Amino acid sequence: MPYTAPITEQRFVLEHIVRIADLAATERYAAASPDVIDAVLEGIGQLAEGEWAPLARAGDTVGAKWTPDGVVMPAGYKEAYKAYVEGGWGTIGVPEEFGGQGLPFAVQCAVLETLGSANMGFALAPILSVGAIEALQHHGTPEQQATWLPKLATGEWTGTMNLTEPQAGSDVGALRATATPRGDGTFAIKGTKIYISFGDHDLAENIVHLVLARTPDAPAGTRGISLFLVPKVRSEGTFNDVRVVSIEHKMGLHASPTCVLSFGDGDDCVGELIGPEFGGMRAMFTMMNNARLNVGLQGVQVAEAATQKAVEYARERIQGARAGQAAAIIEHPDVRRMLMRMKAQTQAARALVYYAAGQVDRANLGDAAARDRLEIATPLAKAHGTDIGNEVASLGVQVHGGMGYIEETGAAQFFRDARITPIYEGTNGIQAADLVGRKLSLSNGAAFAALIEDMRGGTHPALRELVAACDAVGRRLQTADADDRLAASYPLLTMLSVATCGWLLEREAAEAGDDAFGRAKKAVVAFYLDQIVPEAMGLRAAAEAPAAPLYALEAEAFAA
Amino acid sequence: MPYTAPITEQRFVLEHIVRIADLAATERYAAASPDVIDAVLEGIGQLAEGEWAPLARAGDTVGAKWTPDGVVMPAGYKEAYKAYVEGGWGTIGVPEEFGGQGLPFAVQCAVLETLGSANMGFALAPILSVGAIEALQHHGTPEQQATWLPKLATGEWTGTMNLTEPQAGSDVGALRATATPRGDGTFAIKGTKIYISFGDHDLAENIVHLVLARTPDAPAGTRGISLFLVPKVRSEGTFNDVRVVSIEHKMGLHASPTCVLSFGDGDDCVGELIGPEFGGMRAMFTMMNNARLNVGLQGVQVAEAATQKAVEYARERIQGARAGQAAAIIEHPDVRRMLMRMKAQTQAARALVYYAAGQVDRANLGDAAARDRLEIATPLAKAHGTDIGNEVASLGVQVHGGMGYIEETGAAQFFRDARITPIYEGTNGIQAADLVGRKLSLSNGAAFAALIEDMRGGTHPALRELVAACDAVGRRLQTADADDRLAASYPLLTMLSVATCGWLLEREAAEAGDDAFGRAKKAVVAFYLDQIVPEAMGLRAAAEAPAAPLYALEAEAFAA
Repeated sequence: MPYTAPITEQRFVLEHIVRIADLAATERYAAASPDVIDAVLEGIGQLAEGEWAPLARAGDTVGAKWTPDGVVMPAGYKEAYKAYVEGGWGTIGVPEEFGGQGLPFAVQCAVLETLGSANMGFALAPILSVGAIEALQHHGTPEQQATWLPKLATGEWTGTMNLTEPQAGSDVGALRATATPRGDGTFAIKGTKIYISFGDHDLAENIVHLVLARTPDAPAGTRGISLFLVPKVRSEGTFNDVRVVSIEHKMGLHASPTCVLSFGDGDDCVGELIGPEFGGMRAMFTMMNNARLNVGLQGVQVAEAATQKAVEYARERIQGARAGQAAAIIEHPDVRRMLMRMKAQTQAARALVYYAAGQVDRANLGDAAARDRLEIATPLAKAHGTDIGNEVASLGVQVHGGMGYIEETGAAQFFRDARITPIYEGTNGIQAADLVGRKLSLSNGAAFAALIEDMRGGTHPALRELVAACDAVGRRLQTADADDRLAASYPLLTMLSVATCGWLLEREAAEAGDDAFGRAKKAVVAFYLDQIVPEAMGLRAAAEAPAAPLYALEAEAFAA
Repeated sequence: MPYTAPITEQRFVLEHIVRIADLAATERYAAASPDVIDAVLEGIGQLAEGEWAPLARAGDTVGAKWTPDGVVMPAGYKEAYKAYVEGGWGTIGVPEEFGGQGLPFAVQCAVLETLGSANMGFALAPILSVGAIEALQHHGTPEQQATWLPKLATGEWTGTMNLTEPQAGSDVGALRATATPRGDGTFAIKGTKIYISFGDHDLAENIVHLVLARTPDAPAGTRGISLFLVPKVRSEGTFNDVRVVSIEHKMGLHASPTCVLSFGDGDDCVGELIGPEFGGMRAMFTMMNNARLNVGLQGVQVAEAATQKAVEYARERIQGARAGQAAAIIEHPDVRRMLMRMKAQTQAARALVYYAAGQVDRANLGDAAARDRLEIATPLAKAHGTDIGNEVASLGVQVHGGMGYIEETGAAQFFRDARITPIYEGTNGIQAADLVGRKLSLSNGAAFAALIEDMRGGTHPALRELVAACDAVGRRLQTADADDRLAASYPLLTMLSVATCGWLLEREAAEAGDDAFGRAKKAVVAFYLDQIVPEAMGLRAAAEAPAAPLYALEAEAFAA
């Protein structure tokens, strides 16, 4: 499907939301000069448009296939992945000390956005590797880093995250995989993991599995979990005992093989401990936090791609008339409303995710306030970013009318692909629980208060009203009963996300120029502030309601 | 997939929303006695649960198949359809004079709801026949009625509606199919029609196509359109010149073959005129109005089925703990919020669609006020009913977590099946345009005023506020510029639909008893009024905005 990387918009958001110039002024991110950013955005645009996007449809129709010898990707994927590796795109966000280019995480986000808009399922391979790289960076020994990081950074090897087991979905503490010391410092790994994206494939020479498991006599629950590195290939020619049992038959994202992996079926699966014993949850959160941002980013990816496709169709499809002339459907007010909404929501999600990404970089520079901002923005970016991806993909189908329901058109693929994103990397309900359970009270409530304070800089009346409502609801929930907090969590998450987007977009409009891009930006932002922000106020009643009404209907009565 | 017909709820809604006793008190609907209604609801429940539901998955995975000899349904469908015909279910809503049982349209709705929840794609076959029956009933000559109606009524033959052509989607007036007099009173039909649901299949001996076409020298646009009856089989053994060119590869609803039909490729396609020449649009609206209600009903079908499935999963899936005990996920507040929302929205959609169906019956009794109520409720029932179907199906996927994305689970099928309903039978945008373009000013605004007046009986503060907002917005739009009306059409449609649902549900709660059903009803309605109704107020800003902001971004700038 044709796709054009939105370079002007990405550069603008990097400048005005990430404030990349401030990052480039530091020693760590000195590489992020404007000309480098331009070269990155243009280069990845070319790769995505020219090599990744044309494979997206085969990714859906052919998909990754399980064979007894491992998972095989559709024709062309190996070459397109090789181009990604050889272009050095994997190393963008990796620190120079580990062989990377040392560019900010936010720039890596822009790269992954472009790849994922072109081919969402395929782009999961690099995204998963990012998590593995970060876990090693923060928790690996120097030897482990030297062994594994260089080829993970280039993408010659890919990484996976192995958390979920059949009986332990969102409840990670219930996992049962075991790691038994082999006496030589390594561990024998045994267990079954499910939902492992790119758990196997033929794109790379090796796959580095990061696996949560329990050592003998480990305490129950999350406290007893440790993280292990389990390579697919132990050393050249020697395969580890990791078996791909099957891949899932999913509604979408068929280019991404979702594997069931069996570790140690033959009692010969060797892993090494990453970080301290029982440090698994901490290491996992390192992987997961940024992975959550990257899933929020998938919302941006699919929203951008779906919008481009719908706009193209609406400009070409002649239907009905305006002022006596046959007209393209983009001229009809309700179609235009849908397209304007798609555009505004896409820009909102991008602002939110890039903003959070910018906080990753500031936190990496030791900025404690940025760490707090990141913590609170992460569930918003993951949940609201993916909610937007789904809404926009659905509007994209609607703009196409009957054609949208026909698979050959491609709008349906976005709709199906997007639907996993509110589920994986912690369901959006888990994100909402994280917001009200940990983030509202983080730093004794200072993190939440700081976000509210930031947003008080907003001037639009609807935005000011929404910020005040978020403040009142959030402060009340800080001391509320746990069930009441959770009952209100999703409505508050949406309100707070929309407020954050509105605040960021208002800043974008204020800093936009008077060129065509700037005028368009102002029109889109005005629509968001005037029409989308007020919608979120409609959630206030639900955000203020206690849990009791939900339990007024007994569990048995739901089935009656 | 297991499904249980919600008989108690259906009976309750027939009693308190349709007020079926009032209908049964008339001569025309005297057959609708309480024991007959009970027998109908229970009988169709048995057929749906026992024979239709078990075929739903094969309908998706195998689907209807095109072959050179026509479309073939999956194994078991022919027998299940035969059971429907032999049970007399097709004749439920057909007047006694045409060989039917003379029961109200609202009762037919309940029958189709149950069939469609069990197997949504399959149930389209009977639904399409209903449109053909009604067109013949109202516009056929006595001879035509005698020839075609009896077997359409029993379901021995099925019916189709042929409107859309490749170049004419929502713009019916642009159609080009031709009908040329053959000199014997019949017409030679020529043209290609697309998106013809059950345009061919092997369930019935004959298929009665109702086809819009132009006679020679017909005026341009919708004024020049006439309706023709084109049978698949002209007389025993003699096939008409109607060819199934292909069936669409759709995202869902695979049990329903969506055909491209070519009429008169060999210049030997014979049709007969239904109603007067150039009366095609009027006849089409007869078919379409009730077809629109039946599509709104599909929203209820899929919402009910998705809710039942999600509730079952949530009661069985153990994950995490509450009060130190392993708990089923239905016990977690945010999961319960989703399920409560699914249940409330499903009941809201059912109330809205059954209410409109009850107005069909009253209008058939000559009640002019009911005719107005029906006219204004039709776009609400179609658009909001299907919007709810999609929202609830999506929540159903979410409740299942990762399992929801795996096709074998079945939640994804609902999500894919539902997505066509906001598109066909007039996109929901077309429904919104109908609301603001024709219905707001119907009977000089009296129809709208009557609905508002009805809803002023509501007592919940949020409902009263919403009704007042609908009144203010609607009255302003009655005299607004066409573009401003259309720009505000969808937000108003949603507000007015939610208000109508809230008003009807409040009545349900008020009339519910103190038994288990009544207590559950009150809990669900309280949730709807307290938490869903206020959301709709968030749309007021968009409903009050003019069209100008949508055009502030030029068409070209959307692609930039």
